[in-house]
Amino acid sequence: MTDTAPAFRFALSATDGAARRGRLETAHGPVDTPAFMPVGTAGTVKAMRPEDVAETGAQIVLGNTYHLMLRPGAERIARLGGLRRFMHWSGPILTDSGGFQVMSLAQLRTLDEDGVTFQSHIDGSRHHLSPERSMEIQHLLGSTITMAFDECTPYPADHATAAASMRLSMRWAARSRAAFVDRPGYALFGIVQGGVYDDLRRESAAALQAVGFDGYAIGGLAVGEPHDEMLRVLDGVTPLLPADRPRYLMGVGRPQDIIAAVLRGVDLFDCVMPTRSGRTAQAFTRRGTVNLRNARHAEDPHPLDESCGCPCCRDYSRAYLHHLVRAGEMLGPMLLTWHNLQHYQDLMAGLRAAIAEGRVQDHAAAVLAGMAGGDIPPLPA
Amino acid sequence: MTDTAPAFRFALSATDGAARRGRLETAHGPVDTPAFMPVGTAGTVKAMRPEDVAETGAQIVLGNTYHLMLRPGAERIARLGGLRRFMHWSGPILTDSGGFQVMSLAQLRTLDEDGVTFQSHIDGSRHHLSPERSMEIQHLLGSTITMAFDECTPYPADHATAAASMRLSMRWAARSRAAFVDRPGYALFGIVQGGVYDDLRRESAAALQAVGFDGYAIGGLAVGEPHDEMLRVLDGVTPLLPADRPRYLMGVGRPQDIIAAVLRGVDLFDCVMPTRSGRTAQAFTRRGTVNLRNARHAEDPHPLDESCGCPCCRDYSRAYLHHLVRAGEMLGPMLLTWHNLQHYQDLMAGLRAAIAEGRVQDHAAAVLAGMAGGDIPPLPA
Repeated sequence: MTDTAPAFRFALSATDGAARRGRLETAHGPVDTPAFMPVGTAGTVKAMRPEDVAETGAQIVLGNTYHLMLRPGAERIARLGGLRRFMHWSGPILTDSGGFQVMSLAQLRTLDEDGVTFQSHIDGSRHHLSPERSMEIQHLLGSTITMAFDECTPYPADHATAAASMRLSMRWAARSRAAFVDRPGYALFGIVQGGVYDDLRRESAAALQAVGFDGYAIGGLAVGEPHDEMLRVLDGVTPLLPADRPRYLMGVGRPQDIIAAVLRGVDLFDCVMPTRSGRTAQAFTRRGTVNLRNARHAEDPHPLDESCGCPCCRDYSRAYLHHLVRAGEMLGPMLLTWHNLQHYQDLMAGLRAAIAEGRVQDHAAAVLAGMAGGDIPPLPA
Repeated sequence: MTDTAPAFRFALSATDGAARRGRLETAHGPVDTPAFMPVGTAGTVKAMRPEDVAETGAQIVLGNTYHLMLRPGAERIARLGGLRRFMHWSGPILTDSGGFQVMSLAQLRTLDEDGVTFQSHIDGSRHHLSPERSMEIQHLLGSTITMAFDECTPYPADHATAAASMRLSMRWAARSRAAFVDRPGYALFGIVQGGVYDDLRRESAAALQAVGFDGYAIGGLAVGEPHDEMLRVLDGVTPLLPADRPRYLMGVGRPQDIIAAVLRGVDLFDCVMPTRSGRTAQAFTRRGTVNLRNARHAEDPHPLDESCGCPCCRDYSRAYLHHLVRAGEMLGPMLLTWHNLQHYQDLMAGLRAAIAEGRVQDHAAAVLAGMAGGDIPPLPA
């Protein structure tokens, strides 16, 4: 927070069709894009030490305002030096606004123009979130990238519902911008809403740019709509966003979703999928997903993915991973989470290199073809 | 298993009263004694990667025949290259004989002269363990140090019961010796039984030495008897054991138990306490035990133990550890297990150094006095 802190900057170094290779500079270090942000919901990327998260190549992690405000509390984290110090993560962090998770509480929340009042899922205590309080919490957390407070429009929603929801989010976006305390190297991102309606997405993108943000997120996708519908919306939205600002597709997703979005010009992603799957014995590999619980792995001496350099693939057999999963041993989730995060980071690194070399279409096709091979790889003897 | 493998050797480099500083040489590397062996029940030291176990200073880990024979199975582990390769542990391993855990099954087992027939706690399937089968299983696992098959005499037991149990174990010890496949750098340990009866312990120690083993374990302690009773038995037993062979006190224990046993000439220990406690928010520190679940840690910015160099103490506050525990995050058990194992290894390293320097009595007294300070340390401001 001194005047010598580096400014928040985003620069593109290459484009390949709509795909972009770039770099974010922040108060807490750089982020090479397209980038995937592991999710550290409650101040920890589950089952990983932060230095191990960094070792996979991740440069930025995500924290959840909703979870952290309830436990251990934003003021407490501030007194302990902020979220980065609290969780021992030296790089930049992005925090969501709390809106997405509060909205999913359904019966436990009431919404009005000011914001949302809700009950904690932990102890039933009452809390209030508004654009101003969300900005304050994210400030207390010390977020490198703060997200504007919004309502994530549910899917499906009719045009009138999606319009009203989006317009509320746009008023909240302006209030978020007004409440945000700008500092060198820190950023505030707005979130485009509008459901699956092109006219509403256009209206939202224009409204946000009239306010002015350091980056633009695309919200309200990956909420249940078909893959093709997501891509159709993305095709409509990304051209509406300023080319010189980072674009963040929230909560996405599967490797094939990420690849498709990168090809359409998205720069940032987050998703619980690699970490959550790691805790349920699902592994992502270049040949597709593998369920380590399956009995066919019980005597398989081969690594999970012989092309992966993570400790899980370097040091252990599928048979051992299967054993850990069956025995309920904590090392199973630890190793599979590491592998899945490594797989996602390697996916992003591959895309970045391919964009820089102007071969991203071919690269994407090859990656997708490999994944389509199914989860039973033709392993060498 | 080649002729060039180093022999199994044990050499003392210093004694201080009854306490001994020594070194085991094995086919899979050395072990400096007195040593604590972390327990890797089911082929993993719970919540730890093996390289992290080694980083705490541990040179040998323990595996459980009972658990591994049931899942994933000894023959399967053998086909996968043995337990060390299976679990990616390059150092020596010691396996127990399976007897202790089978005996604890109570309703699920029947005992006769040949051995024990029992039902798996996992799936109810029937299994048989005998001295010969236990030796075979430990051979299949590739154990560096194999334990003779014995019956762990329960506590309390009257003299007649303890005598009959011990004499059965001695017959099984002779059968274990006969069935054990000797190889350079591998070892077979006998186990002294006899409950709390000095005459039975004497008879047992003599019977084992008549057979001849590479090391001698003291079994049937830490099974519920008072601390002073354990020490009284130890005082009687250790002088009966050959000075030039390692002595292993099975299943012990708390730091104060280990210190007392080292002062009485014990060389090897194992216990689930540091790992199990780490998973239930209990930490061992030089000031005694600390329960991280306690609310008084909620805003404590200090490390768990400022004198400890482990990642848990180096990188995190008590407040963060408390948060992880309360939120049920896996990183909590991961960090606390690491710390507890580090604390145990540091305890052993301190004892080894003190023995070498002829000051083990003063050192032990200082360590015990520090622990008696209670679990609320007078932390610096």
